[in-house]
Amino acid sequence: MIRIAVDGMGGDYAPQVVVEGAVQAANDFSDLEIILVGQSDTLKRELNKHKVLGGKIVIEDAPEVVGMGDSPVAALRKKKNSSLAVCVDLVKRKEAHAVMSAGNTGAAVAAATLNLGLLPGIKRAGIAISAPTLRGITIAMDVGANLNPTSYELFQYAQMASIYAQEIFKKKNPSVGLLNIGEEESKGTEVLKEAYKILRDSPLNFIGNIEGRDFFTGKADCIICDGFVGNVVLKMCESVLETAVEIFTRELKKNPVTMLGAWLCKPALSAIQQETNYEEAGGAPLLGVNGTMIISHGISSARAIRNAIRVAGDMVANQVNQRIVEQAALCGPAAAGAKAEGKQA
Amino acid sequence: MIRIAVDGMGGDYAPQVVVEGAVQAANDFSDLEIILVGQSDTLKRELNKHKVLGGKIVIEDAPEVVGMGDSPVAALRKKKNSSLAVCVDLVKRKEAHAVMSAGNTGAAVAAATLNLGLLPGIKRAGIAISAPTLRGITIAMDVGANLNPTSYELFQYAQMASIYAQEIFKKKNPSVGLLNIGEEESKGTEVLKEAYKILRDSPLNFIGNIEGRDFFTGKADCIICDGFVGNVVLKMCESVLETAVEIFTRELKKNPVTMLGAWLCKPALSAIQQETNYEEAGGAPLLGVNGTMIISHGISSARAIRNAIRVAGDMVANQVNQRIVEQAALCGPAAAGAKAEGKQA
Repeated sequence: MIRIAVDGMGGDYAPQVVVEGAVQAANDFSDLEIILVGQSDTLKRELNKHKVLGGKIVIEDAPEVVGMGDSPVAALRKKKNSSLAVCVDLVKRKEAHAVMSAGNTGAAVAAATLNLGLLPGIKRAGIAISAPTLRGITIAMDVGANLNPTSYELFQYAQMASIYAQEIFKKKNPSVGLLNIGEEESKGTEVLKEAYKILRDSPLNFIGNIEGRDFFTGKADCIICDGFVGNVVLKMCESVLETAVEIFTRELKKNPVTMLGAWLCKPALSAIQQETNYEEAGGAPLLGVNGTMIISHGISSARAIRNAIRVAGDMVANQVNQRIVEQAALCGPAAAGAKAEGKQA
Repeated sequence: MIRIAVDGMGGDYAPQVVVEGAVQAANDFSDLEIILVGQSDTLKRELNKHKVLGGKIVIEDAPEVVGMGDSPVAALRKKKNSSLAVCVDLVKRKEAHAVMSAGNTGAAVAAATLNLGLLPGIKRAGIAISAPTLRGITIAMDVGANLNPTSYELFQYAQMASIYAQEIFKKKNPSVGLLNIGEEESKGTEVLKEAYKILRDSPLNFIGNIEGRDFFTGKADCIICDGFVGNVVLKMCESVLETAVEIFTRELKKNPVTMLGAWLCKPALSAIQQETNYEEAGGAPLLGVNGTMIISHGISSARAIRNAIRVAGDMVANQVNQRIVEQAALCGPAAAGAKAEGKQA
């Protein structure tokens, strides 16, 4: 049985929606047990609204709550009994295999990095998101944990993203692209030029630099970038569909013929919305920490929470962290060119 | 009469399409005279295919051509008689008021910066693009000239983008947003935190940090960012419509009802394509150089070239550079906080 600690108080619609998603996960996935962490009275009241098959949810009390706007460092220092801190602690004490939170992302990254530490050989943790493209799922890493990675950290992100793509999305020999402002090796910052060399000489399936225009086309299975540009791009992607729908709706409403046309097109639009639905991906792992942490979007629905819990379980079942430690050892600083290690941006 | 030097050999479809666009501009805009620069035999042959009203195009010979893949520095050093170099030289010698090129962007930036120099008080040049959003045109700057701007350079980009938005797009008191990974003042790199403070204390209409999701919504009239993230985002925007059309087409073709629906929607789709057509913007100025340079997309059509030449003329007619020099003097390092000047990333 895989035990997942769920941050019951984290997220814009917590605890209601988080509890609902946790119940769905408990009922749908026979190999998972849920530890719902938060203010126990509140969580009990929410849990009583649902039917849990086979008693696979337990509640762990945590009186404090980290707000979405709290400073990550202050939240860690001042709220030692927050639902997030208790979740991470359960993983540290091996009472849970993984933690899932839809709360404050910065606080989740800080709590996991500081309390769990990093996997042996890994220099920095990063967030890997999975996004739908024209040719299936693409992994982008990092999308916000590390704003100024070194070239060696970027290389390790490529290693970790490749393993994630293999183990969770069953991609064989996943291709890796380095996000840059041009395809030539000579493009971009010094950090990117150095990362290009390390990646080129590594055993990874490196296909070279890719550009912003390659994001939606699925040119690479894994897109490697710093956390700043990754975060900007991720938030752009999230708003693209919404904006497109707003523009189309405005134009289509201008006359009855196009309105009829739009009505006839509805099944196709629903199919696209289903295909590009963030809910199915559910959550993004913080890769590199010594433990499994899945971070979900603050606006997550119950369905998204359920799927994020599923991803947490898949990470544990597929031993993603063990694979990362093996690869980091096999292809560490020595193999990747010791020169590169520790180089600063 | 405003004289525009046009790089006849620059662009994926040069010289044919560039000459066609130059002819359109000469015929459509009574205040412009075009100096078509490049291999004169080739340009004459192309020009003979068109009818120019009133003899407003002259040819200036330049035997060499900068290729789209040439290294900018090598192109500058080795091809002193390239069409690009001669164009810039015409501006330097005051024989032309502005230059327009759809060729190698890096070479254009290098040629203008090194041969024309910067405007008094300006620290670095940057490229400002105008993009259609849900609420009209937004200016984004920089999109590729300066990958590691200091906080003071970002502030000057905000000054220059505001003037461009006012003078060319007739926006009153344009709003300025700083592209970041969160809205709070404490977010992002040290350079961005410092830029936030300078902007907040400046006379500009600064609305704070904006995020990736605000890009398409037109939340700010001017979006300020470093050239790396600006370039990635610009290229993503360019591919969004294409990708959306591909996804829609694939889904709509799956059954006859949605195909009929799509056919009925066509007028609305055409209207959207027209609204978001990059051809109408035409070109992006390299702001901050001591002269007017408009850079166009390599794949520019004749219509886009015509409009880029129009923007070049508008820049000169509206004295955008004079306005920039005035503002830089009024709100220089002293006014903006001398502490910020020269700070490195």
